[in-house]
Amino acid sequence: MLIKIKWILFVTVFFMMGISEQADPLPSWNNTNTKRNIINYVENAVNEKSPYYIPEEDRIATFDNDGTLVPEKPLIQILFSIEKVKEMAESDKSLLEKQPFKAIVTGDNEYLKTANEDEVISLTLKTLTNISERQLREEVKDFVFKTTYPHLNKTIDKIVYKPQIELIKYLQKNKFKVYICSGGTVDFMRGMSKELYGIDSENVIGSSNKYSYNEATGEMILEPELNSYNDGREKAANIALIIGKAPVISVGNVGAGGDIYMLRYSQNGNKNYKTLQVLINHDDDKREFKYGEKNNISLNWADKYKWNVVSMKNDWKEIF
Amino acid sequence: MLIKIKWILFVTVFFMMGISEQADPLPSWNNTNTKRNIINYVENAVNEKSPYYIPEEDRIATFDNDGTLVPEKPLIQILFSIEKVKEMAESDKSLLEKQPFKAIVTGDNEYLKTANEDEVISLTLKTLTNISERQLREEVKDFVFKTTYPHLNKTIDKIVYKPQIELIKYLQKNKFKVYICSGGTVDFMRGMSKELYGIDSENVIGSSNKYSYNEATGEMILEPELNSYNDGREKAANIALIIGKAPVISVGNVGAGGDIYMLRYSQNGNKNYKTLQVLINHDDDKREFKYGEKNNISLNWADKYKWNVVSMKNDWKEIF
Repeated sequence: MLIKIKWILFVTVFFMMGISEQADPLPSWNNTNTKRNIINYVENAVNEKSPYYIPEEDRIATFDNDGTLVPEKPLIQILFSIEKVKEMAESDKSLLEKQPFKAIVTGDNEYLKTANEDEVISLTLKTLTNISERQLREEVKDFVFKTTYPHLNKTIDKIVYKPQIELIKYLQKNKFKVYICSGGTVDFMRGMSKELYGIDSENVIGSSNKYSYNEATGEMILEPELNSYNDGREKAANIALIIGKAPVISVGNVGAGGDIYMLRYSQNGNKNYKTLQVLINHDDDKREFKYGEKNNISLNWADKYKWNVVSMKNDWKEIF
Repeated sequence: MLIKIKWILFVTVFFMMGISEQADPLPSWNNTNTKRNIINYVENAVNEKSPYYIPEEDRIATFDNDGTLVPEKPLIQILFSIEKVKEMAESDKSLLEKQPFKAIVTGDNEYLKTANEDEVISLTLKTLTNISERQLREEVKDFVFKTTYPHLNKTIDKIVYKPQIELIKYLQKNKFKVYICSGGTVDFMRGMSKELYGIDSENVIGSSNKYSYNEATGEMILEPELNSYNDGREKAANIALIIGKAPVISVGNVGAGGDIYMLRYSQNGNKNYKTLQVLINHDDDKREFKYGEKNNISLNWADKYKWNVVSMKNDWKEIF
């Protein structure tokens, strides 16, 4: 009799574990409308009997990086560029007399706080050239595991948003091809995308320098010329150029308005499927940062086009 | 007894079918060294016990298109552009006075025979603008099934090289990600890649116009500005930019020398794996066309770097 009860208990617990696992693919998300919308969308997309079914080949999802998967105050790539500038200054002291190098090496915090992606790109072109993309990626991989992110006192690999990693894994499990589509440079992103997000290099789209192929060594060298600045409208255009499909799911954030065209393209570039847009709103100054946008365009479009706005404060149980 | 013999026969035949299918994934290839090298390479790549094993995520293969998967005398995209020019001339008669439009509309065969990919690109920029990539792809899809290819008297969908389709399917079955990497434009290639080769749009790399996103309609419009001419060194660079990995297998052809850097990059851009280069040589004037290169550079590099040269005449049992 005791054995029988044990067995019933065991089977019940086992069954409940199964249920709860199935019922909650996003445990770090609070049980709000946003979470229900996402799960409902995915369950329909993979259900052949649903009117909102999407064949596997068209299950494309694109995620912005800075402010969407990790904090962006400051941008991680700015931190990396600063390290590179310091290295450069060690071997070429004359750089210390020039801006923006001087400000960087002397630790000008104002620059750090206000630098936006335009400046990252400009700085990248100045600092990350005549290096091979392979070497750069190795340096970035090393950098993210050893560098402490300011204000949060954690190394960079520990400041990835946990709810977003759950979302990426949930989508991948449901046969979505998940892409990063970042204003940061593509080689920089590839140095961290596999380790931090589980995303392969061929699923990373970013800003880019021109590459030149050195056929003597087999290396791809970054030239000091911008190939593409993957932001705003160009983000949408690059998705079309590289993927050739409008994503059915697109995720960005409030901050500089750089993701609105990507989200909108996933919405009106798709003629055959129901789509899902998610916009992360940074409203949690206790656990992360609180900021908006000057002209409020991202939230205005979210309202106008009925996107899902994630309140980090209310929708996320845990952040890191 | 009779039943028993029937059973033995049945089982034997069934078993042999299984064997032969397993033993010959490339039935349109003759049983030559080239075929044995390819199969041997793939069998090692997927065998975890082999020193030449390659993990799934790094099984990347890139194929050129014109002259590698289909004939290129003339280029299919030139045929399409000619149709477009004729359409344009119908609504704008003044074009008939301008070159190259005049030569095209009057059916100048010399132009057809000698046009190379540079001219395709130039013509593309003149003819394929202010159209959405979606509309262009639909037109191409229609075009390849209804247009007869000169000299061969078959519609374009029927002049795909059968041995290459077998090779693509064989690689895909063995979990290689197979990419097209063409000098032709990316939208043009996407109009035929799925139907003719079984390759999805996100696995197509090509030359490209700049795109602009029209957020009112959701369309991506082709602008009259070249984004990239995917040939020579730039072909290798675009693979690095878009895939972020050097392919372990790369397949091109003798003709204009446009694939040599792609093949070489797959060879010396890879530090961790054994790689495979395949170069198609057009030496069969009975079944297809016979031509070489002015400076013979592709075959010279093939010899120098030990690439596999496919003699269409001797290595391919069937071509179409």
